[in-house]
Amino acid sequence: MTNIKYLFEPKKVALIGSSKTREKIGMTSPQLFESVVYNMKKYFKGKTLTVDIHKKGSLGIQEEKLELSVIMLPPKQSIQEAEKCAKIGVKALVVITGGYKDAQRQQLVQLRKDYGIRILGPNTIMGVINTENGLNTTFEKDTMPTEGNIAVVSQSGGVGACLLDWACFYNIGISKFAFMGDKIDVNDVNLLEYFNQDPKTKVVCLYIEGIEHGREFIKTAQKVVKTKPVVAVKGGITQEAARRALSHTASIAGSDEVFDVALKKAGIIRTENLEELFDAAIALSKQPPLRGDNIAIISNVGGPAILAADAVAKNGLKLASLSETTKKKIETRYVGVDASNPIDIIADARAERYATVLHHVLSDSNVDGVMVINMLKSCFFEPEDALAIVETVKKHPQKPVVDVPAGGEDFNLVHKVLGTSNLPLYNLPEKAAKALKALRRYAKTLEKLE
Amino acid sequence: MTNIKYLFEPKKVALIGSSKTREKIGMTSPQLFESVVYNMKKYFKGKTLTVDIHKKGSLGIQEEKLELSVIMLPPKQSIQEAEKCAKIGVKALVVITGGYKDAQRQQLVQLRKDYGIRILGPNTIMGVINTENGLNTTFEKDTMPTEGNIAVVSQSGGVGACLLDWACFYNIGISKFAFMGDKIDVNDVNLLEYFNQDPKTKVVCLYIEGIEHGREFIKTAQKVVKTKPVVAVKGGITQEAARRALSHTASIAGSDEVFDVALKKAGIIRTENLEELFDAAIALSKQPPLRGDNIAIISNVGGPAILAADAVAKNGLKLASLSETTKKKIETRYVGVDASNPIDIIADARAERYATVLHHVLSDSNVDGVMVINMLKSCFFEPEDALAIVETVKKHPQKPVVDVPAGGEDFNLVHKVLGTSNLPLYNLPEKAAKALKALRRYAKTLEKLE
Repeated sequence: MTNIKYLFEPKKVALIGSSKTREKIGMTSPQLFESVVYNMKKYFKGKTLTVDIHKKGSLGIQEEKLELSVIMLPPKQSIQEAEKCAKIGVKALVVITGGYKDAQRQQLVQLRKDYGIRILGPNTIMGVINTENGLNTTFEKDTMPTEGNIAVVSQSGGVGACLLDWACFYNIGISKFAFMGDKIDVNDVNLLEYFNQDPKTKVVCLYIEGIEHGREFIKTAQKVVKTKPVVAVKGGITQEAARRALSHTASIAGSDEVFDVALKKAGIIRTENLEELFDAAIALSKQPPLRGDNIAIISNVGGPAILAADAVAKNGLKLASLSETTKKKIETRYVGVDASNPIDIIADARAERYATVLHHVLSDSNVDGVMVINMLKSCFFEPEDALAIVETVKKHPQKPVVDVPAGGEDFNLVHKVLGTSNLPLYNLPEKAAKALKALRRYAKTLEKLE
Repeated sequence: MTNIKYLFEPKKVALIGSSKTREKIGMTSPQLFESVVYNMKKYFKGKTLTVDIHKKGSLGIQEEKLELSVIMLPPKQSIQEAEKCAKIGVKALVVITGGYKDAQRQQLVQLRKDYGIRILGPNTIMGVINTENGLNTTFEKDTMPTEGNIAVVSQSGGVGACLLDWACFYNIGISKFAFMGDKIDVNDVNLLEYFNQDPKTKVVCLYIEGIEHGREFIKTAQKVVKTKPVVAVKGGITQEAARRALSHTASIAGSDEVFDVALKKAGIIRTENLEELFDAAIALSKQPPLRGDNIAIISNVGGPAILAADAVAKNGLKLASLSETTKKKIETRYVGVDASNPIDIIADARAERYATVLHHVLSDSNVDGVMVINMLKSCFFEPEDALAIVETVKKHPQKPVVDVPAGGEDFNLVHKVLGTSNLPLYNLPEKAAKALKALRRYAKTLEKLE
């Protein structure tokens, strides 16, 4: 455990690659090396040492106090360099390239045993990101997510890259990224342990193909979810895909049912796809758990509110019955508004009406959580009106609220205003309902543990 | 039927509103009127007559050859103007505003009976759009979708506005938009009939809350789907939502099961939400039906291909078993590539490798359709490489292909190059698999009819 932190929090890092070697099949290339060097120079706040084995020669004993080495070479050379790193006391390694044979993997495992050096990979492809200190061992130039509190662990480079791309594009706040690859040493269990004590991480997202140490994984996850929700997507749940997972990351995918039971036991929230993974993580990182099933819907449009009511029910939640007092307060103030849930506050609703109705609804003990729908198209709502919603949400920190600026441009406009606020945004009511379901599941996990 | 066409293809249109009247609750406002006039002046290629009842006075007998009137006034005044329009021989009306009492609705119905004038609405909120002649009676300034072959019919203004926003933002090609509102006259059946003979429309999207003439609707849809696929989302499938639908558009939503059976009988493809509605429509408008269950996956990344294989199976499709000949062709040419489906063509694949492998796979009689995954992040693929995929797809017009540039920015970059091509794009494998499922369903519908 101790040395794992050097994967994310090193002060001095060596980037070991070659300006000449290019693998015919494989990731080693001068361009990749150059890109990692570029990103580290641009973002990393610690010291970076670039070791081009065709110019400088390989790492020597003179390189003191190196804490992390990132190796981007074909298997044989990578192992040579890894051994040198281990001998001069480097604490951790990220091995980017893939294509290692079993015997070669064993050589790396032996280094771990002999020197205590921790190894991420091989076949991590993208390595690690830490938004706090700017560590970025990926070869995607200028690709750095916003600092935030969601940690992402991906067994697959491609899926991790997809999540990284998604996080950057939608400006999702990230603490750390780890691409595990073949996990000959550092695995899900180690990373969960690390994120459990990482003050910058509030939610952990996992993409998993297979788990080797099932019992340990469940035990660790159970500990983590007490304070930090864990969300997961499992790849290789069908037989055909499982076969491919075996050759992809040497994972025995196991049956979907067994995996599902294991995740439930672990208290991990499972989602259907990568978008839902982040949708859930955003809600969990910004809003409190949903302590009951009763959802109120507040909307300036009728149709989307109906779709929202459907989605709430389809996700195992209920439409809250508002108290007569709440209804009366709303209907007296806004003549023409029908305050039966879903509440249609009419197309001309602006900031004041949203804030007032939301405040009354959140004060109602029949309500456990709220979905707000604020369309711009076909309505009078302006993006800045959404700030009033955020202010109201802050006054009721015990009940979760999610917001739906439904559509493409509408979502984008409101996202520009509220993207960094604590109000989770979704472009369709169905996605918001699934996020509420994740908040409900986390509440149930906590209840079980209490 | 004859006069329905004037809702979409009028040569001369009157916009009847007021620069002064503002309803306390309701959509009548000078701003709305001004916005509709703005859009019509900007986009409409025919003649527009603006009738401000506070300036010009109302419509007179002198207004000859008006084919369509768009009325944006409170109920009482709307009816007065509607009557004048009917009397001078206007062929069709769009009534934007809502809040009509039953007796008022009956007055409009009577005009239809007495004069044969066709009425869309009231409570259409956004009215109609025709991308071909620039007719746009919405009050969203500068909001005009790209010309294309998908027609959209929404019973709800809000849902229609959401779809319109989505279509504009993601550049989805649209032929016509119709917002039905309270449908006292023009309904789903009439619009299906119209789109059936509209040469510009290839696919019809429906948002439905309730259907009044069930038998007629099913009969008409059965006729339409012979040449044009129809995709639908149903709102108000749960009890709570159905109650709201009743007050929203006076729809009796009926049980979800009954509705599902009816849609199946009608040959309509039902989707879970509005994003899937367009995802399916895009596939159906660009690619042929999927004539069998066997899908090949070609990917430059391993993990997303595994998720794709899972998604294919979850959507009732199968992973195709490639013939030994096909595998050999691919593996001989690209040493290191494992041509077992899902086919991982490795992270350094560019245009040539994609085109060649796709060609071999599409030529294999074991394959009915293909999902291509081309990630940029963590790979060497460039957006322009995707053009080679389009060219290959064109050479195999009998088998559908869908493409997944997985992620946020990656999707956007490829979309810029291929958005207007005939290759449907999805940002996640799960969405592409659902689109393939829609293409399979349409093939099965056609088989049943043949």
